[in-house]
Amino acid sequence: MDTVAIVPAMLPGMSRDPVPSGSTALLTDHYELTMLQAALADGTGDRASVFELFGRRLPSGRRYGVVAGVQRALDAIEAFRFTDEQVDFLRSEQIVDDRTADWLASYRFGGDVRGYPEGEIYFEHSPLLVVEGTFAEAVVLETVLLSIYNHDAAIASAASRMTWAAGERPCIEMGSRRTHEEAAVAAARAAYVAGFASTSNLEARRRYGVPTGGTSAHSFTLLHDTERDAFVSQVESLGAGTTLLVDTYDIAEAVRTGVEVAGPGLGAVRIDSGDLADLAHRVRAQLDDLGAKDTRIIVTSDLDEWAIAGLASAPVDGYGVGTRLVTGSGKPTCGLVYKLVARADDAGTMVPVAKKSADKASVGGRKTAHRRLDASGSATAEVVTLDGSPSDGRDLVVPLVSAGEVVGRESLDASRERHARARAELPIIARQLQPGDPVIPTEHPS
Amino acid sequence: MDTVAIVPAMLPGMSRDPVPSGSTALLTDHYELTMLQAALADGTGDRASVFELFGRRLPSGRRYGVVAGVQRALDAIEAFRFTDEQVDFLRSEQIVDDRTADWLASYRFGGDVRGYPEGEIYFEHSPLLVVEGTFAEAVVLETVLLSIYNHDAAIASAASRMTWAAGERPCIEMGSRRTHEEAAVAAARAAYVAGFASTSNLEARRRYGVPTGGTSAHSFTLLHDTERDAFVSQVESLGAGTTLLVDTYDIAEAVRTGVEVAGPGLGAVRIDSGDLADLAHRVRAQLDDLGAKDTRIIVTSDLDEWAIAGLASAPVDGYGVGTRLVTGSGKPTCGLVYKLVARADDAGTMVPVAKKSADKASVGGRKTAHRRLDASGSATAEVVTLDGSPSDGRDLVVPLVSAGEVVGRESLDASRERHARARAELPIIARQLQPGDPVIPTEHPS
Repeated sequence: MDTVAIVPAMLPGMSRDPVPSGSTALLTDHYELTMLQAALADGTGDRASVFELFGRRLPSGRRYGVVAGVQRALDAIEAFRFTDEQVDFLRSEQIVDDRTADWLASYRFGGDVRGYPEGEIYFEHSPLLVVEGTFAEAVVLETVLLSIYNHDAAIASAASRMTWAAGERPCIEMGSRRTHEEAAVAAARAAYVAGFASTSNLEARRRYGVPTGGTSAHSFTLLHDTERDAFVSQVESLGAGTTLLVDTYDIAEAVRTGVEVAGPGLGAVRIDSGDLADLAHRVRAQLDDLGAKDTRIIVTSDLDEWAIAGLASAPVDGYGVGTRLVTGSGKPTCGLVYKLVARADDAGTMVPVAKKSADKASVGGRKTAHRRLDASGSATAEVVTLDGSPSDGRDLVVPLVSAGEVVGRESLDASRERHARARAELPIIARQLQPGDPVIPTEHPS
Repeated sequence: MDTVAIVPAMLPGMSRDPVPSGSTALLTDHYELTMLQAALADGTGDRASVFELFGRRLPSGRRYGVVAGVQRALDAIEAFRFTDEQVDFLRSEQIVDDRTADWLASYRFGGDVRGYPEGEIYFEHSPLLVVEGTFAEAVVLETVLLSIYNHDAAIASAASRMTWAAGERPCIEMGSRRTHEEAAVAAARAAYVAGFASTSNLEARRRYGVPTGGTSAHSFTLLHDTERDAFVSQVESLGAGTTLLVDTYDIAEAVRTGVEVAGPGLGAVRIDSGDLADLAHRVRAQLDDLGAKDTRIIVTSDLDEWAIAGLASAPVDGYGVGTRLVTGSGKPTCGLVYKLVARADDAGTMVPVAKKSADKASVGGRKTAHRRLDASGSATAEVVTLDGSPSDGRDLVVPLVSAGEVVGRESLDASRERHARARAELPIIARQLQPGDPVIPTEHPS
């Protein structure tokens, strides 16, 4: 876990092959295209429309949420083009009629998108995205935008709790094997936005420039005739600064062997099982006795924010987090929705619209938001207003797409820094891990 | 939700573009390659090795698990090739040395894989995959194989509980928006294996031939000046057999309008909010009064297996399931691991190996498995044995890859049928939703 190479920050917009499938157009629910077909047929598809992406509430017990996936969403909008093969598929399978197929063949989003930038904190009813265009061009983006936001924000929201609990100690993302192989790449990226130091996922480094690290698994020790043979091989290949995994057989013996093999300059040892706090104390004492005072102790084994907090007083130098990170630490999705909030009438006048469904009512009108801060700079309220209302705080909504052109590119490090700043504004009670209400209230039109 | 087109089953091995990124090689943890580098340097990389993919236990409370992702894993093995650009990346970022980079450039898996076929049921310690080859060629597959199995089996295991609870009524997968956009495609596929009738996800249809359906969302109603306008438009575009969404404003009024517009041949109505059982009874009575006796009622709104079971006595004709399906209904990952269980020594003799870590001990040796059945054909035990032991039941392990060539291709419908057959073998208590122990015990070497 030691060879964390710091990769130069990718330039804004310079992610490599951000959309592995080339086109995002079919990462879409069937009903988006049937609605489209009917709206193109009756003429309402051309009505100017405003969609809003937001959550009615935070996942239960969470004090705040973290916006993530913004740059991936911009990638997805740019790649939302229907290839000839995709159009032929939709036509030949009679998913859409010819008129709709022709329309899709020349689709590109030409509207505007504003929203919260990546890494920002969000609360109930925060308008994370405001998408404006014709109904036809805006409705078809619903599924893929929600997929990206619901996943990435869930991971970042969990990651933020973990890195806050870890304080100055680094958190290392290593959950790729416990989630879908492409979700793993996005999870590594989202975790980095929320303060993780590095990931195990190589594609996240290639695609997004997230630093990676890793040394060895138990299989490497078992492959060799003795643990010593394995350690000798690893140190010869990776240097004495490497991290040796010491719990394949007997930990105390492995630590002794490791320092013998690598010398007191051994980089780190990793403990992946057992009572981590107790073991960390024992291993620390043993390492100090052996003169390896600078050898770090990395712990891994189903860690989450509570386990990290519980190890605060143990002599641990870094946390490897897997399963609980990639599954959102009990909240694997955010419940964000994408709702039509305004559309033109026949005269071209914009009309706020809202559904009245039980427990799922929405609030009409195009919105914006700001965060109200007290004199000390601490957040006191999330204020969602109808667009055009005066702001009495830090404005939260920025331009992301203008007339179809992406204008909201930024580097991953800029998002990461924004998250650190925005989190520092929260009342300190937000750091508590116990379930509770959102740490600040949301004022919104109703 | 009505226009479920039945797509002809794809021929075995004929998925379209199954690996969106072309190569799966970097969907890999950094440490696989550092281990590889050290093992190539010291010669142990050539040791014949056996890895086993299994779970030490089922997710807590689950009575059985469902194997899924097998065909995707075969796709991933075939696509596990390092492109020139990927090799250059690994070399230039000094993630691996030149010897390792050269080795990766010519990598292709040349070993054997056996395992449980897709749709099969599994239990604790079931050897889902047995991967044999050199250590070097087998270790690098770990991350992507685990990603696929841990995700797809989690979804299929949840889906199986839902379809069993639903009985003859169809379950419709519509969770794409609540999970990562590529995980959504895999989730739709896994749900179909476990008995779902269809999905909303268009890419799952294009890539894997999963049937899709969908009609309209609340935004379509809100787009129009009146609900009647929306219904007229939808019926004109999609026919009277369509499904009208009736809870945007007032349900009883929407049902009346819908039958007026479409006639008593209206295909279905969808209810997406409120007390679904109560509403289903009211709407059924209203539809019958209006002469629309064959109009079906589809319910959607955070359904899971418990909600489905709770609606068993309500006049419901189909269940749309979203969030709870794609998040594994509380168990978003399976905890499957990939462990070295045997490897050659210097003399070429295979040696069973196992780690002794607290709570994570593994069992050495190459294994196989069968399911013991009683005289009535009901399963009584999962029997894991060292390979070569006699079987007294239904053999569970089949060849999947032979000397690097995939030999285990089958159609998605074959997997789906296998799941139905295997589930029917379980003691009926397995259908109960309450948490419990695995429904049959696993006998395994220790």
